[in-house]
Amino acid sequence: MELKNDLLIRAAKGEKVERTPVWLMRQAGRILPEYRAVRNSLSGFIELVKNPELAAEVTIQPVDILGVDAAIIFSDILVIPEAMGLPYEMVEKKGPWFPKTINSPEDLSNLKVADAESDLGYVLDAIKVTKKELDGRVPLIGFAGAPWTIFCYMIEGQGSKTFSKARKMLYNEPVMSDQLLQMITDSTIEYLRAQIAAGANIVQVFDSWAGILPSDHYQKFSMKYITQICDAIEEVPVTVFAKGAYFARPEMRHLNCETIGLDWNMGIAESRRLIGEGKTLQGNLDPCALYGSPSEIETATKKMLDDFGTSRHIANLGHGVYPDIDPEKVKVFIQTVKEYSAQLRAQ
Amino acid sequence: MELKNDLLIRAAKGEKVERTPVWLMRQAGRILPEYRAVRNSLSGFIELVKNPELAAEVTIQPVDILGVDAAIIFSDILVIPEAMGLPYEMVEKKGPWFPKTINSPEDLSNLKVADAESDLGYVLDAIKVTKKELDGRVPLIGFAGAPWTIFCYMIEGQGSKTFSKARKMLYNEPVMSDQLLQMITDSTIEYLRAQIAAGANIVQVFDSWAGILPSDHYQKFSMKYITQICDAIEEVPVTVFAKGAYFARPEMRHLNCETIGLDWNMGIAESRRLIGEGKTLQGNLDPCALYGSPSEIETATKKMLDDFGTSRHIANLGHGVYPDIDPEKVKVFIQTVKEYSAQLRAQ
Repeated sequence: MELKNDLLIRAAKGEKVERTPVWLMRQAGRILPEYRAVRNSLSGFIELVKNPELAAEVTIQPVDILGVDAAIIFSDILVIPEAMGLPYEMVEKKGPWFPKTINSPEDLSNLKVADAESDLGYVLDAIKVTKKELDGRVPLIGFAGAPWTIFCYMIEGQGSKTFSKARKMLYNEPVMSDQLLQMITDSTIEYLRAQIAAGANIVQVFDSWAGILPSDHYQKFSMKYITQICDAIEEVPVTVFAKGAYFARPEMRHLNCETIGLDWNMGIAESRRLIGEGKTLQGNLDPCALYGSPSEIETATKKMLDDFGTSRHIANLGHGVYPDIDPEKVKVFIQTVKEYSAQLRAQ
Repeated sequence: MELKNDLLIRAAKGEKVERTPVWLMRQAGRILPEYRAVRNSLSGFIELVKNPELAAEVTIQPVDILGVDAAIIFSDILVIPEAMGLPYEMVEKKGPWFPKTINSPEDLSNLKVADAESDLGYVLDAIKVTKKELDGRVPLIGFAGAPWTIFCYMIEGQGSKTFSKARKMLYNEPVMSDQLLQMITDSTIEYLRAQIAAGANIVQVFDSWAGILPSDHYQKFSMKYITQICDAIEEVPVTVFAKGAYFARPEMRHLNCETIGLDWNMGIAESRRLIGEGKTLQGNLDPCALYGSPSEIETATKKMLDDFGTSRHIANLGHGVYPDIDPEKVKVFIQTVKEYSAQLRAQ
């Protein structure tokens, strides 16, 4: 089906666009009362992830309510460890928790490379339902966690400030670490391909814990696998968002992907210089800027648009939208991007 | 009293040294069984901080046991909010927790600028006891948190991945934020001066949450106050360690301090280029490298020393030592610095 609004896809490919496309990480869920109503009708977060009809509903909510230029499928990066044999729970106010974790090479024998169709069919179904209901209004973004970030959770079993247990594994069990990262990578490639086959128009790889690795380890234990993923996806544009990996920007220039996400610490001009003209950049307003007044949000958003310029940019925050942000403030951000970026091009 | 080993002080000042001095952030406490024996004789962490005799004992332990080139007074950055009127508790396995926090401009009226002598006498006493017992063997490092990091805890009341409550305050209450940051700064300057008067030979400012601010906010709400602190301390060298503030390195060149701490993500050559030749650099081995085998630690430490070169470097980890690190591994790090850095100079 042809997309009625394909700004995001064209911007990702580096084509000329009439205005800068805009969406928000974590837009599906969290901030909308309409989302919370759906979420509260079920017993938990994971139940919602596994319910294709309702996942599709909350995926589309921000398109209707906020006016974003893309939907992102409502799901979680941790469906991959679950599909590999390591189920997780989502503990209210605490985050993910894994009853079993990987502690030694022997534990790998309990894992398998995920089969997208049989293990993750609920995500693929949610994509199909969403696509049908979106009816080509905007593109649908599929996603997965980067192998390093998934590895962190599979070793650590929960969030952590240092992920020192996961990082210790890289030093003490480098062979096992490589094996596990490769299994995650293989699972992720098949999963993203299945998302694309189900209808995803673009896919994003989230490396949420990129920023805790020293540069040499990042090359060896993260970029290596992200590179494999980028090389394996040919049908749609790929976005890589490696939060905190400022030191890896020069190497990102060489990734076989279309778009690089920037977090809010990364300088725009510097990032463009390091990453080069060959990529679209996505981001990167400080998520906390949406706590400001409407006029402050407008000013900050315009400044961001000025700094990125009119080519190869997708507007977004520099991280997921925070749960207590007023949706009206989000609308100011979105509206400002739409109007001001069109003005900039008309000049 | 003259120092028998003044390598750290001379290295901080940019003087020639026979070998690179070495110490570890968080060396006082955490990893040593001898520390845990003292700690477990009391009811809690804060009781130890407030007991000058025992604080001195655990301050000196790493000098005797590990052979570091400096002692750092055993204390906590959160003694400042407590002295200003906001007491804290240390919750086992969870970290600091403040029963009262700052939520509005009105709350400032319950705070005061700390009086070092009357409110923080226990730290000054601990410094005096330590100095007496150290008997000039190595320098004693005093320290405080940077105003932004202290502000984070005073607003948020506990650790956080995003500190979005504290960061929201910068957007919504910039005047109050400045007032509170100034009160913390004034408290900190008096506190560091009192530490120096009590015997500290060098002081370090820890900006643990530097890395969550966008660059413009970092200038406005953190560097501004760190600059005041650096300008106010004249008697001894000052070290600034702003974890994650890679984007602020070009401005750190202009701080009126002797040493800049680098975290393990910051490239050594790049940092030297950005910060210039006028500062000593401190750091920055990945704390997780100490999970490796002795020969891996040796290799990583030598590489770090090669990269920093033989002038203006103080060896350290890129963050505090992790609690489950084997002290024997720490000794390998320290011994390698001592021997290899002397060899490098003999060549």
